Amino acid sequence: MTKLAALVFPGFELLDLFGPLELFGSVDADINIAITSGQQGPVGSTQGPRVMTDCLLKEALDAELFLIPGGPGIRNQIRNEDLLGWLNESAKTADMMMSVCTGSALLAAAGLLDGRRATTNKLSFSRVARTGKNTQWIKQTRWVEDGKYWTSSGVSAGMDMALAVIERKFGRDCAKKAAIYAEYDWHNNPDWDPFAEIHGLV
Amino acid sequence: MTKLAALVFPGFELLDLFGPLELFGSVDADINIAITSGQQGPVGSTQGPRVMTDCLLKEALDAELFLIPGGPGIRNQIRNEDLLGWLNESAKTADMMMSVCTGSALLAAAGLLDGRRATTNKLSFSRVARTGKNTQWIKQTRWVEDGKYWTSSGVSAGMDMALAVIERKFGRDCAKKAAIYAEYDWHNNPDWDPFAEIHGLV
Repeated sequence: MTKLAALVFPGFELLDLFGPLELFGSVDADINIAITSGQQGPVGSTQGPRVMTDCLLKEALDAELFLIPGGPGIRNQIRNEDLLGWLNESAKTADMMMSVCTGSALLAAAGLLDGRRATTNKLSFSRVARTGKNTQWIKQTRWVEDGKYWTSSGVSAGMDMALAVIERKFGRDCAKKAAIYAEYDWHNNPDWDPFAEIHGLV
Repeated sequence: MTKLAALVFPGFELLDLFGPLELFGSVDADINIAITSGQQGPVGSTQGPRVMTDCLLKEALDAELFLIPGGPGIRNQIRNEDLLGWLNESAKTADMMMSVCTGSALLAAAGLLDGRRATTNKLSFSRVARTGKNTQWIKQTRWVEDGKYWTSSGVSAGMDMALAVIERKFGRDCAKKAAIYAEYDWHNNPDWDPFAEIHGLV
């Protein structure tokens, strides 16, 4: 069984979280998904809907896969010392630490992206880059892999990154099946990124 | 303010619900999103994560937009007389009734698709078609519009349908902005559907 812990905090972005979780949750493999946060109970998203916490951060340290969504709430979380400590602890044993959108600001604030390549969403690009001064931020890419760190561009890019992670961990067929099940137009080339130009980053 | 009520039930499909809600929730318009179900408290998805109910079905009757996700749980819901009654009540005043994936089976079971064109996901196509015997089921299409009823193909197709609804209700610019914000590769032509062939339906 593969344990996947997905972080939530007030003001997380709905699709950052649930796009990847749809795909991980549909893979023909034994994956246990747990929503984790700093406190029990419901946690509200940017768009309104609230998700229930399944386990506390301290109970999720043994997960092999971590997923960190972005959203406006990330601005408070990059100063949350408990959370940054948990991320550092989790990173020691995790196979893969994933972020979607501005979620990479949290990995950067924890120092985990120092000396690494990473990306984030287009609209907050310069702000996130300021959080991770020792990171090489890639402007035009759907996602970036550097060691155990997988960071994706904005919102829907998390789904393409998730499929790339599924491919790596469970094989190409598994990823392809999950995409076809979801009737999803998988962009399996990380260089596919028309949005960098649309948002004026390149 | 536009009220959008999104139905949940045990065993709903995560992306069916949260893909469209991400887009509706990011539109530059005053849209209030409420998760509605038959009882208060958390409701579990197929993939595991639980969403909180914001209001009961009877409190959501005045919504202008309704969203019905699919998922394995739909098989129980098509026999849920209270729910079918609520759908009929809601349909009287709603502007648009939307379903994603097998969610259209629920509209069909309520008799709301009688004499109409509709679609559903590929994997459950024949099963859903048996639920709605008086409906013309379209095999190859990303989504179908017939009157106030908008039905989409499987899972991720709900996002393209949501953008088409946003375009209709709030204008092309609004839909385009929401897609670009989400860095989403919008398929704005309902005829785009490679999955009908992949799944052997055509």
